[in-house]
Amino acid sequence: MTTTVARPDLAALAARFAEVRTRTDRLTHGLSPEDQTPQSMTEASPTKWHRAHTTWFFEEFVLGADPGYRPRDPAFRYLFNSYYEAVGERHPRAARGHVTRPGIAAVAAYRADVEQQVAARLEAGTLTEEQLDLVELGCHHEEQHQELLLMDIKHLLSGNVLQPTYVERAPDDDPTAGPTPLRWTHVSGGVTHVGDDGAGFAFDNERPRHRVWLEDVEIGTRQVTNAEWFDFIADGGYTRPDLWLSDGWASVQDAGWRAPGYWREDDDGRWTTFTLSGRRPVVAAEPVCHVSFFEADAFARWAGQRLPTEQEWEAGAASGLEVRGGLLDPQRCHPSRASEVTLGDVWEWTASAYVPYPGFETAPGAVGEYNGKFMNDQHVLRGASAITPPQHPRTTYRNFFPAAARWAFSGLRLAR
Amino acid sequence: MTTTVARPDLAALAARFAEVRTRTDRLTHGLSPEDQTPQSMTEASPTKWHRAHTTWFFEEFVLGADPGYRPRDPAFRYLFNSYYEAVGERHPRAARGHVTRPGIAAVAAYRADVEQQVAARLEAGTLTEEQLDLVELGCHHEEQHQELLLMDIKHLLSGNVLQPTYVERAPDDDPTAGPTPLRWTHVSGGVTHVGDDGAGFAFDNERPRHRVWLEDVEIGTRQVTNAEWFDFIADGGYTRPDLWLSDGWASVQDAGWRAPGYWREDDDGRWTTFTLSGRRPVVAAEPVCHVSFFEADAFARWAGQRLPTEQEWEAGAASGLEVRGGLLDPQRCHPSRASEVTLGDVWEWTASAYVPYPGFETAPGAVGEYNGKFMNDQHVLRGASAITPPQHPRTTYRNFFPAAARWAFSGLRLAR
Amino acid sequence: MTTTVARPDLAALAARFAEVRTRTDRLTHGLSPEDQTPQSMTEASPTKWHRAHTTWFFEEFVLGADPGYRPRDPAFRYLFNSYYEAVGERHPRAARGHVTRPGIAAVAAYRADVEQQVAARLEAGTLTEEQLDLVELGCHHEEQHQELLLMDIKHLLSGNVLQPTYVERAPDDDPTAGPTPLRWTHVSGGVTHVGDDGAGFAFDNERPRHRVWLEDVEIGTRQVTNAEWFDFIADGGYTRPDLWLSDGWASVQDAGWRAPGYWREDDDGRWTTFTLSGRRPVVAAEPVCHVSFFEADAFARWAGQRLPTEQEWEAGAASGLEVRGGLLDPQRCHPSRASEVTLGDVWEWTASAYVPYPGFETAPGAVGEYNGKFMNDQHVLRGASAITPPQHPRTTYRNFFPAAARWAFSGLRLAR
Amino acid sequence: MTTTVARPDLAALAARFAEVRTRTDRLTHGLSPEDQTPQSMTEASPTKWHRAHTTWFFEEFVLGADPGYRPRDPAFRYLFNSYYEAVGERHPRAARGHVTRPGIAAVAAYRADVEQQVAARLEAGTLTEEQLDLVELGCHHEEQHQELLLMDIKHLLSGNVLQPTYVERAPDDDPTAGPTPLRWTHVSGGVTHVGDDGAGFAFDNERPRHRVWLEDVEIGTRQVTNAEWFDFIADGGYTRPDLWLSDGWASVQDAGWRAPGYWREDDDGRWTTFTLSGRRPVVAAEPVCHVSFFEADAFARWAGQRLPTEQEWEAGAASGLEVRGGLLDPQRCHPSRASEVTLGDVWEWTASAYVPYPGFETAPGAVGEYNGKFMNDQHVLRGASAITPPQHPRTTYRNFFPAAARWAFSGLRLAR
Repeated sequence: MTTTVARPDLAALAARFAEVRTRTDRLTHGLSPEDQTPQSMTEASPTKWHRAHTTWFFEEFVLGADPGYRPRDPAFRYLFNSYYEAVGERHPRAARGHVTRPGIAAVAAYRADVEQQVAARLEAGTLTEEQLDLVELGCHHEEQHQELLLMDIKHLLSGNVLQPTYVERAPDDDPTAGPTPLRWTHVSGGVTHVGDDGAGFAFDNERPRHRVWLEDVEIGTRQVTNAEWFDFIADGGYTRPDLWLSDGWASVQDAGWRAPGYWREDDDGRWTTFTLSGRRPVVAAEPVCHVSFFEADAFARWAGQRLPTEQEWEAGAASGLEVRGGLLDPQRCHPSRASEVTLGDVWEWTASAYVPYPGFETAPGAVGEYNGKFMNDQHVLRGASAITPPQHPRTTYRNFFPAAARWAFSGLRLAR
Repeated sequence: MTTTVARPDLAALAARFAEVRTRTDRLTHGLSPEDQTPQSMTEASPTKWHRAHTTWFFEEFVLGADPGYRPRDPAFRYLFNSYYEAVGERHPRAARGHVTRPGIAAVAAYRADVEQQVAARLEAGTLTEEQLDLVELGCHHEEQHQELLLMDIKHLLSGNVLQPTYVERAPDDDPTAGPTPLRWTHVSGGVTHVGDDGAGFAFDNERPRHRVWLEDVEIGTRQVTNAEWFDFIADGGYTRPDLWLSDGWASVQDAGWRAPGYWREDDDGRWTTFTLSGRRPVVAAEPVCHVSFFEADAFARWAGQRLPTEQEWEAGAASGLEVRGGLLDPQRCHPSRASEVTLGDVWEWTASAYVPYPGFETAPGAVGEYNGKFMNDQHVLRGASAITPPQHPRTTYRNFFPAAARWAFSGLRLAR
Repeated sequence: MTTTVARPDLAALAARFAEVRTRTDRLTHGLSPEDQTPQSMTEASPTKWHRAHTTWFFEEFVLGADPGYRPRDPAFRYLFNSYYEAVGERHPRAARGHVTRPGIAAVAAYRADVEQQVAARLEAGTLTEEQLDLVELGCHHEEQHQELLLMDIKHLLSGNVLQPTYVERAPDDDPTAGPTPLRWTHVSGGVTHVGDDGAGFAFDNERPRHRVWLEDVEIGTRQVTNAEWFDFIADGGYTRPDLWLSDGWASVQDAGWRAPGYWREDDDGRWTTFTLSGRRPVVAAEPVCHVSFFEADAFARWAGQRLPTEQEWEAGAASGLEVRGGLLDPQRCHPSRASEVTLGDVWEWTASAYVPYPGFETAPGAVGEYNGKFMNDQHVLRGASAITPPQHPRTTYRNFFPAAARWAFSGLRLAR
Repeated sequence: MTTTVARPDLAALAARFAEVRTRTDRLTHGLSPEDQTPQSMTEASPTKWHRAHTTWFFEEFVLGADPGYRPRDPAFRYLFNSYYEAVGERHPRAARGHVTRPGIAAVAAYRADVEQQVAARLEAGTLTEEQLDLVELGCHHEEQHQELLLMDIKHLLSGNVLQPTYVERAPDDDPTAGPTPLRWTHVSGGVTHVGDDGAGFAFDNERPRHRVWLEDVEIGTRQVTNAEWFDFIADGGYTRPDLWLSDGWASVQDAGWRAPGYWREDDDGRWTTFTLSGRRPVVAAEPVCHVSFFEADAFARWAGQRLPTEQEWEAGAASGLEVRGGLLDPQRCHPSRASEVTLGDVWEWTASAYVPYPGFETAPGAVGEYNGKFMNDQHVLRGASAITPPQHPRTTYRNFFPAAARWAFSGLRLAR
């Protein structure tokens, strides 16, 4: 999964572990036992499950590698394994919301117990190199679930007629103010290196670093905004089949899409959107969010442009001065905001299908199922979103979702 | 819905109201917020929803009839209306388990508030005759939901690998002891009256009382037992299409039925069943439970007998001395047991489709949707079960479920 | 299946056999190989299949009872068995339209061969009593399929944008002329006999004759007409949930019903309907056709009346002078018309669920699967339709379909 | 769609047109009207529909471009349009098998009429450059449908218990003889050109020619054989989740895959497969056929190799001497055989998702929907199969199917 290169020293790893674990607790402590239990669709999971599964990951892969380690509860292995066939049978994914026991308190105790055991081993220095790698992987894994649990709780709460609030937020200044003008930055082509260079942590799907050939390209300096999406809608974007991939047009008709996810048109023609701070006006200058790959692709076609490939995107992000502003600069993937969970910057759909890099190899054992087995019929997103944990983004990072998915914080950037 | 005949005086009605409401609280107070939130299938509902819906029933139909009454929360009308089209739009039934707010505490407060308001009006004597009828109906309605919530929580808990316990219970004496012998009681035919005579409370579907012609019949003095079901299984009952209705045989194959609901065969060939007291051995002498109409019908065919019609059943129950023992005696519909929620006596499938009685009329207004609109493609069960509230059963009572349903406490009695 | 009472003599049976077989050929000879091959929905079957299946019935049950009889082709037993579990595995019902071989010519040869063999045995007098009963049953069986194949070919052709014609027919005189006034005929109640008396042929589901208690009832002297259905539509019949059973209202919404099956509203507001003679104006004075049980039930509620039970219907049909006109008179079940396959009189939905009569018994062997195993969750229709073969109807006849089915020639008559 | 470069002269185009049209007739003339009518699954189409649709293509795009051309029958535009949104509404794809009229004879007349009109214009030299391009495109389009109709008729016939034969074929010499040894050919990497160079006809999805970076690779000199697939099965290939993509493993379980499509294991453990010449033994030395992308991918993982990318495949095919034998040599894509429709060489799944080439552009108008709108969630196959028309293959050709599809003649070649 990871190569043991330049891993922080033990103390730094212990600090990171503690910080990540605490952050999950912080993100979920305002949610009631009722909020944490249900699952609003098969693709989403209960908050409680996310909390337990991220803990199970450390128990199974780190503690479980200790000779003689006895699992805290064999049933937890069944309940909180996500998809690791090598670990054994699992609770059915679609029924995660039916697991009422262990309850919230028992899950908290499970978290504390495993956490304490990992921390103790980190302090005692008794973990093998491989276990240390897995602690590091587990931290990144838990950060992924921090984003997922926010996506999932948003989806769950959105279905409640009360339109509940996850976190309070002040009203936006002026939802109708226009976006900054769209400019283009030039990225030079040629033989280019893509993928992680192994200097720090990266997921297996970002490796190996390899060469690709790119032509020159121009990439937009900012993401597509709600203001531009209003124009797309007004111009019949959701009613013209010529703009859409065939499967995308089928989704439009089957699901009745006529605006991004969570949007609603009021009787007066004004649009609101459901956010983690309840239902609010759509802010024209903000990046459009909760659009599917199909919508991003149709928009780009309507605009007479296209989506960048993930290689172009990465080259743009790596070319320093040429790419200004926005998420292409990894240092600004997560700009400071009043709240880290408000709607804001978005993952960017690319034109690239999610396939293995040349020379891709999976890790041995169950952890090898982490990424590789999902490499078909999904689409790569790059960057990060407003709810991605601050330390998490990388320019080589490959996020992925099916083409019709809309519950991620997903938007787009144009290329030409 | 009900005719105002022989209703108990106001004080008695107030006492009954208080008792019913308290009983619901008693049945649910051991369930955690997590337990009370999910919905394990579309047909089942969350405990929390049952508690809120039964309260909404009193608010909507009793308090709501007061001129100038303002609903506690308009959203509750949307969230806790079950199926009353005349009341308006509703939260989708299949998504009841996604409603995390209001939480348990807010539901308890809702219960207390409506309860206090109804009680105050009962004490003040300000309710109209029609409202008093609806209080009485609401009590019976809440009793129905007391049984439903136990069925539903059993179904929910059964899906958890931990096989949790709703209530503790001592082990059974001897699960292998055989049942009492099956005897037959003769019920004489002729022109017979069926249905409620209007002297006390009854649901609309039990009326009007009317004449039917019956031939002589013999009815079993006890229900079919697990011991007999073991024989049915051993004789290939689930593998012989000639025993089954066509739709029943399709259910056997599609759902993989090879034993009653909740049964499981251990490696040693012994059968256990999931109960409200966890997983326990199947007790040979107990009535078989959690069988569908299709299974009851196939069993009767296998046994060379048949199911009684609901009219025969009612005539048997009404003929006093001739029918001894078991649920046919309404006074014994709910024999005393250590716990009212342990597995025990069961509703009995009849041969009768659930259709309106001759001259059936629905009440005006939304409450007319109570029973009438479900009178197609369901099957009548008579009697009561171990989890039916004590005051609830009547010999004229018509319970009903689809032919493939197995999560009710349903068994059978033979006729010939 | 049948009791051997008053069967016609051998010569008469041979004549009947020849006539029934010839009638099938006559009904299908105008259909091309292409027309005869596909299946437009699971519930319908290809014309070719009907022709082969009715032949298989004689081969399997009559010829197959001969010791030493060798089936013409073992594959036909697999391909043309409809639902007889006791005969063995079958071609999947939903894929009957994928069977291209044997083709039309081979099916015709199969028909001729089996026909000749049965006829030869009838002439030689070598069939047992039981076989003779099965010849008679097979004739009635084939008559049922004559109606089914017309229902099915109508459904198939209706899906073609060319709106093809099965049979030519002159235009109707005046589609807007109103119906005759609706009058009521009185049927006296009391202990009444229902079911076939065994004097002639009847299906098993019409037996045994038994006593029922009926109250006095009034039954409409004619069927509900298209003119009345226009009023139902105009009065919002398809938009008012209070008129509908719960499952019926779900069907209205899921299937988008807003008029009977095959109806279409033109831009000028005039209604046409697809018929076996192509698309034609809806004729106001004709009985409404292609309505489901749910629609019939909703209409009756809207009209402030109800559907008769099947026992009331049969009593009405048997009471001679009191019931005038229309289908209640079995002699007029099939009035003479220019073409026997034009739209005309219709089967009448009753209020009765399709359940076995008291004392119902199935025949031994595979033929016992004929009717009995379908006796759940269907609804009884009485009378006959314009496409029912002339000799087929009986006042005791019990037709049955699921509540949402609309492709039969089904209408209704009111009672009060 | 095509650029007007080096198109054959008019006489050559007319000859090609005539030859392609005749070939379709030759392929279908042995199929009865019954064979030509049904559709065995949504993805497949009736033979009759293929014959009419390929004709409609010429009528719509070539004749329809003539000012004043009147369509032969407006209904054909509705019935035989496959998926061109810009042309208008279409008959539902899943119901193509329900169209019995026009029948076979009328379709043949339609073919002859359009054919004659196109031929006359070709002879008269009255077609525009654009129309001539569309005649050429229409020929290639019809060749694609020649392969599809054979795939589809095979799928249809396979579901018949009679296991019918499309074409007779002599028995294979020795089904158990082993394959030739697998060798590897080296393909050098670097900046490489991929895609069609515009010198002859190519589909839009093969363009533009563009540069890619490739690493050195070794490609197998022949396809994977049935002999090797026997080993895969024997080694538990279909029972080990670690070999499979997650969606692939779900397919294995949901569809019950345990061998390639059409394979069946006899009681004696020998495998047969359904072919266009009926059911026959699986021939060890032949390329494995009717495997999905998921199976190809799992096999490669099991073998410790991988699938080539489409760029590697094309580089291999273009590198002349280094690649010997087999389908990589386009001249041998379709080796001489007794019958062009017997099982033989196969399309080869690559590791590449079907995405647009850099700079891909669709043609204006309806014909722009030809390929582009399907460029998501499908997988590229290269080469050709035993049923691909002889003139059809190109080394730049991009075939594509969903990952779970098995009814194409699809196999694989390994890389490392």
